[in-house]
Amino acid sequence: MTDITELTKQIMGRLAGYEERFAGLFAAYFDRLGETLETPAFSRFAPECVDLVRDLSLRGGKRLRVALLYEAARLVTTGTPAGLDDAALSVELLQTHGLIHDDIIDNSPTRRSGPSTYYAYRARHPEHPQAALGLAILAGDLAAFLSLRVLIDSPAPLPVRHAMLEVQTGAATTTFLGQIADLERDFTPVPDEETLHTVADFKSARYSILAPLQLGLIAAGEDPRRHEDTLRRYARLVGISQQMRDDYLDLFGDAAVMGKSTGGDLREGRRSYAVSAVLAAADDAERALVESALGDPACTEETVATVREIGDRHGVRDTLRAAMRRHAELASAEAAGWRPRWREEAVTLFQYLPLWGLERAL
Amino acid sequence: MTDITELTKQIMGRLAGYEERFAGLFAAYFDRLGETLETPAFSRFAPECVDLVRDLSLRGGKRLRVALLYEAARLVTTGTPAGLDDAALSVELLQTHGLIHDDIIDNSPTRRSGPSTYYAYRARHPEHPQAALGLAILAGDLAAFLSLRVLIDSPAPLPVRHAMLEVQTGAATTTFLGQIADLERDFTPVPDEETLHTVADFKSARYSILAPLQLGLIAAGEDPRRHEDTLRRYARLVGISQQMRDDYLDLFGDAAVMGKSTGGDLREGRRSYAVSAVLAAADDAERALVESALGDPACTEETVATVREIGDRHGVRDTLRAAMRRHAELASAEAAGWRPRWREEAVTLFQYLPLWGLERAL
Repeated sequence: MTDITELTKQIMGRLAGYEERFAGLFAAYFDRLGETLETPAFSRFAPECVDLVRDLSLRGGKRLRVALLYEAARLVTTGTPAGLDDAALSVELLQTHGLIHDDIIDNSPTRRSGPSTYYAYRARHPEHPQAALGLAILAGDLAAFLSLRVLIDSPAPLPVRHAMLEVQTGAATTTFLGQIADLERDFTPVPDEETLHTVADFKSARYSILAPLQLGLIAAGEDPRRHEDTLRRYARLVGISQQMRDDYLDLFGDAAVMGKSTGGDLREGRRSYAVSAVLAAADDAERALVESALGDPACTEETVATVREIGDRHGVRDTLRAAMRRHAELASAEAAGWRPRWREEAVTLFQYLPLWGLERAL
Repeated sequence: MTDITELTKQIMGRLAGYEERFAGLFAAYFDRLGETLETPAFSRFAPECVDLVRDLSLRGGKRLRVALLYEAARLVTTGTPAGLDDAALSVELLQTHGLIHDDIIDNSPTRRSGPSTYYAYRARHPEHPQAALGLAILAGDLAAFLSLRVLIDSPAPLPVRHAMLEVQTGAATTTFLGQIADLERDFTPVPDEETLHTVADFKSARYSILAPLQLGLIAAGEDPRRHEDTLRRYARLVGISQQMRDDYLDLFGDAAVMGKSTGGDLREGRRSYAVSAVLAAADDAERALVESALGDPACTEETVATVREIGDRHGVRDTLRAAMRRHAELASAEAAGWRPRWREEAVTLFQYLPLWGLERAL
């Protein structure tokens, strides 16, 4: 067995390689798009929209979805099969679509250390907020269909492209239903764990983890439907664990480390894992305090600190950390079961990945 | 040659047949969807969203796009080739997507004699306008991807499905860019004719006329790319003519006949064909009056009547009617050229259709 430090170095090297490779690929895609996309001749707004989609897309960070996709292919082959790069573009364009529409839905001014597309339009048209809203919706719609066009136009064999389109459209549909359930969750006084898990699975895990896994396998010539159950379980566990981490950091994280203030979910009335756990553990007086802060955009840092203290008093911090670790470990165990079937080095990555993701929280 | 009345009767019979056939097909599609779509178990909002998409979809009227599609196949064959029904569902689901998002963009309370999806959500969540906005955006996103799923899941041969996906995603992309250019148009003091034509082509003609034609031909085994130029010309001319008619009726129409008040475009600040023609023809004092009414939601019936009088004084009413007729006749002539190539009875329909559409305006 390889030395663990050596293994980590290898995996880190591969991840950095994917990130760099994809950065070039994505920029080249948008260059090509600017040349080939037919826009109305007189229009300045149409190319501006493509530029805004490009800006947000290229501002992406670690590209974890892309890494999952390439490593999923590596479960089967060390080559770069036809269609894999197109699948990477598709995954990130669908992500861009999701971010643009999410930022309208959440009325978020910032995204990826810059303005959200919605607020970029509002800044351009301060006198016309309705036009800004319309342009942002259309920018998101455009990104959604571009994410499918790259698969349709891919040089991969037709059955590969078709299987990929099936995955991406299915993942998108599931995500929309998950986002709807997510909005619904915030109308629930105290959502139970199963509700929170279902939302995390539908809203995030399916398109962020399961779809890249399926697409990578398809490109590599493997039929992911033959491994549907284990892939779904893995994706769900990782998705839940990651969502718990995000929700935990939003309430219990270190504002200085994260570069943003804590309590965002509380102020927006989001019944996150952390907020729900505090609500469930609190006594009547405490719950009244948390509920009065929930959905109050003016809720102060002090109130957030008080909610945090209520959580600490009931051990919520530790409970959440234990739960996210447990889900990550279950995901690791699921991936370990892939060992006889698939290539060792890639299985190892899928095994370690869920726990690495928790670093900042544990 | 067949008697013209007999011919009209035959064509009307076919159109009524398509409408009826499609009504059953679309209802059955949604029944099946309700059974097969995986929604979060706890969620009431997710099935409610599917119901709202269904309600709006089934409230469609004449289904002109569906008729164009079936008749396009009939240019080649009298059968109902595999994939044709799925293409019809796809066309109307994409239309549903467009309507849902348009009604957010235009902040429209009504659609197809009922509430817009956006306003249906606002009525359900009067205390949560932001959630209503989010749910409506997601309902539109869902309809968009469902429109592609029906093609992906179609029993038609893979190359047919693929060619259809190419058409639909291309049409949607073009439409978004057209809608963006349409919003941009309203920032233009007096858009010229070429700008108005380009918007009508991109925003409407491509997905409403060209795409159904292409899809019908594909289902019937014909490659529409071999006839790209003539199909594009036909679609553009019909699209321009229909847009002129709609814009004309909105300003010069009979409110009693249309069942809605005139001047909607004026109040919403839309530089439509009619509004632009009045602006271009008006003298300085008249233009100042029209411009003061443009974009004023409180603009009275009297002011609309005054704008109409300004138009009449400069012959705008006649100019517009002549222009829409000319474009319809050019479209007819284009379709007449299909006669040696394609089946007589369907060519005849495409030849007469552009002029029939103008009935109410001429």
